[in-house]
Amino acid sequence: MSELPAPPRHMTPEEFRRHGHAVIDWLADYMARVETLPVLSRVEPGAVRAALPPAPPEHGESFADCLADVERIVVPGLTHWQHPRFLAYFPANASGPSILGELLSAGLGVQGMLWATSPACTELETHVMDWLADMLGLPAQFRSSSTGGGVIQDTASSSALVAMLAARERATGGAANAEGARQPLVAYTSTEAHSSILKGVRIAGIGERNLRLVPTTSDRAMDAEALGRMIEADRAAGLLPFFVSATIGTTSTGAIDPVPAIAALGRRHGLWVHVDAAHAGPAALVPELRWTHDGLDTVDSYCFNPHKWMLTNFDCDCFWVADRAALIGALSVLPEYLRNRATESGAVIDYRDWQVQLGRRFRALKLWLVIRHYGVEGLRAHVRHHVALTRWLTAAIDADPDFERVGAAPLTLVCFRLRGDDDRNQALLDAVNEGGETYITHTRVDGRLVLRIAVGATSTEHRHVEQAWEVIRTRARALGAA
Amino acid sequence: MSELPAPPRHMTPEEFRRHGHAVIDWLADYMARVETLPVLSRVEPGAVRAALPPAPPEHGESFADCLADVERIVVPGLTHWQHPRFLAYFPANASGPSILGELLSAGLGVQGMLWATSPACTELETHVMDWLADMLGLPAQFRSSSTGGGVIQDTASSSALVAMLAARERATGGAANAEGARQPLVAYTSTEAHSSILKGVRIAGIGERNLRLVPTTSDRAMDAEALGRMIEADRAAGLLPFFVSATIGTTSTGAIDPVPAIAALGRRHGLWVHVDAAHAGPAALVPELRWTHDGLDTVDSYCFNPHKWMLTNFDCDCFWVADRAALIGALSVLPEYLRNRATESGAVIDYRDWQVQLGRRFRALKLWLVIRHYGVEGLRAHVRHHVALTRWLTAAIDADPDFERVGAAPLTLVCFRLRGDDDRNQALLDAVNEGGETYITHTRVDGRLVLRIAVGATSTEHRHVEQAWEVIRTRARALGAA
Repeated sequence: MSELPAPPRHMTPEEFRRHGHAVIDWLADYMARVETLPVLSRVEPGAVRAALPPAPPEHGESFADCLADVERIVVPGLTHWQHPRFLAYFPANASGPSILGELLSAGLGVQGMLWATSPACTELETHVMDWLADMLGLPAQFRSSSTGGGVIQDTASSSALVAMLAARERATGGAANAEGARQPLVAYTSTEAHSSILKGVRIAGIGERNLRLVPTTSDRAMDAEALGRMIEADRAAGLLPFFVSATIGTTSTGAIDPVPAIAALGRRHGLWVHVDAAHAGPAALVPELRWTHDGLDTVDSYCFNPHKWMLTNFDCDCFWVADRAALIGALSVLPEYLRNRATESGAVIDYRDWQVQLGRRFRALKLWLVIRHYGVEGLRAHVRHHVALTRWLTAAIDADPDFERVGAAPLTLVCFRLRGDDDRNQALLDAVNEGGETYITHTRVDGRLVLRIAVGATSTEHRHVEQAWEVIRTRARALGAA
Repeated sequence: MSELPAPPRHMTPEEFRRHGHAVIDWLADYMARVETLPVLSRVEPGAVRAALPPAPPEHGESFADCLADVERIVVPGLTHWQHPRFLAYFPANASGPSILGELLSAGLGVQGMLWATSPACTELETHVMDWLADMLGLPAQFRSSSTGGGVIQDTASSSALVAMLAARERATGGAANAEGARQPLVAYTSTEAHSSILKGVRIAGIGERNLRLVPTTSDRAMDAEALGRMIEADRAAGLLPFFVSATIGTTSTGAIDPVPAIAALGRRHGLWVHVDAAHAGPAALVPELRWTHDGLDTVDSYCFNPHKWMLTNFDCDCFWVADRAALIGALSVLPEYLRNRATESGAVIDYRDWQVQLGRRFRALKLWLVIRHYGVEGLRAHVRHHVALTRWLTAAIDADPDFERVGAAPLTLVCFRLRGDDDRNQALLDAVNEGGETYITHTRVDGRLVLRIAVGATSTEHRHVEQAWEVIRTRARALGAA
């Protein structure tokens, strides 16, 4: 076979061992030093690209050179989400066991689109999702042993989309998949809900005009009475209300929608009730905060993101559905090249029918390792620790006459503002973030600029919250009197 | 602060170093021994779950115990996609540099939803996508310096969906996003196209009934003349043809649609032309196979999956669009909590507007490391090596009177059958896969069961293809005469 061209220079297992150790060492060092780096990247637009060669390399380069460029070019262009004083957006917290789970998943490189393409990939996922349903006290119908089950999606956006698709098909008797979304469908969520609901309504061909943004009460939670009136008005107008998304812990201010009342309206009017607890989900791990999840007993679907506040690197969104047949009915397509005996036996789950994509990696490994490393008590301690840090911060804000708090802070998101106008708050936000010691973001409440602090990076401890608060106070004083 | 609860027992940087080295060593050993494992998992449904504790652990466990369970419980439940005799479906080939890139991405744990949330994450992606456009000889309008640009999606399913959404909005002047997919939109693809097109048409609210499956010519490529007639008939009926998806390398048989003729019809009738080269894309790296990509000059979007045949672990789908404004117009939603100066300056790309999801991990790192490790010449050698192995196999099948080949095999997918009926071919397929030495899958062509071999696992060399072919011949002989 001398005429066959040679294979390329692959990285051998022994080279992988050597370079892999170097990457692990580099990451261990990064974890140890990330606290010393400016949280928010200071590069200007175009600076990273300017440091890269305009053309790809013709010849292979050494891995050591690549790792050196990660340090030289990439790190200065990063905003460090794993920094203990990263307090912006919601966290995307990672942990050692989750990173190593992702590494194993990448290295094994198996596909979990069908049970048959790697049974452990599917079965471990079903099992871990049942474990989590126990841990969060989710209702029985979300278990795989009942009518429903759990699946790992990439993000809460995808969960909302597939929930909406299942709801759309249920409401139209399958007609939307078959004929297109021609019916006068109407969806509901609050004015404070995440942008993914609007994006989902667009994608699913429902149309923005057919998404009703329900007003909120003074706590910025959905006004369930207003929801009821809107549903009735739409029904009276001959429209077809089919879906409502409630939020436990809104992105803007952490508000908690009244899920029991929303679920009751959903039952009465035949709407699919989806609950998005993307950030707040882990609160249900601890008995004293499980009230945040009241009312899930009769909802149709629920999701939360371990990649936000449960120590699992992005992406990892856990989605449960009470009636898996509705979900599969909306998403299943079975071409010949995917047919196999296990699928046809009906004895297995094929997760490709639970998501938008066909392919899927070994998603459950990292979540399994996180749960096993920490144990349920460790995850509870994690939640209690961050909630306590947030309560400390909340008390500090309340005690400072220069600041006013905005809304309740039942979990780990605090909204507040410097007394004075929006310009003053914008100036404070900019000064705090340019300093590099911490990174916070903003929102608008009742038209006013409001600052947000979300505690939740894995390594955030009390001293980091204290330091960040001191930076904010110092920068505020530097602005002078209002 | 003695009243604050303690943080949980995190894995320290030094523990991460130690356990990380253990995982790297385990993976290096796995790579070295995977060839000795049965390719297709032999577990029965439920066996993996039965080996797992019914309840989650209350207390944290040691990482060594977890890794031991990966070996004991997970490995027997895997079908080994990185096995050199994995010849089923399309490959999902990984490589050392890509696995280490995924590890770095997980460890850094940054978010790339906005340029501002980690500039390097966005800029490295734009840069590598421009490199790849050069490497594949894609048209100028796909470069970020022109009207278009590239973005990394998870899978080709998501690329087809976002292409369809951009097309839908362009065809309706934005009305579908606003009002819902009420217009009489019609999409086209061939009868041999991937199931993701049908799934996308359902998701986007177009409806299955409004997807025309264009017949194929004798080579199972789309019949462009038939496409033209169907578009004209739909227009004459007052419908709105808006989208056509052509395939370079179909999943079933590797057929290559006539993209130049399809693109010309798209231009004439104002359709968005999307090209799915999920598996075949890397062929364009080598000049002698670039003909497979003829006709891309005027198409609207194109994608291929480095996670299939370009040595990058799943997920990694590269998607380019000629008019990025059309894509962003279809997918952009900007809530207050995501507003920032860089976005408002217009000087940066925010990739959240190029995809379904909001969050995104540092997707480009692994692709950058793959291109740098191999160099362009190494990736060309990879393509030429696997194509040569496939030609060897094709010649061997043609030389064997017990078998007949089905269709051309221009790249790395060969379709063939044992002479005789479907039952005989099914029996051969089962016997081959139960043996564990290799794993192949099937499809149907003209109603007949046909076997498929897709060469492309990273470590597949000539001896592996020879061994697999010998197994198939031996098992065929064992079936006795037809």
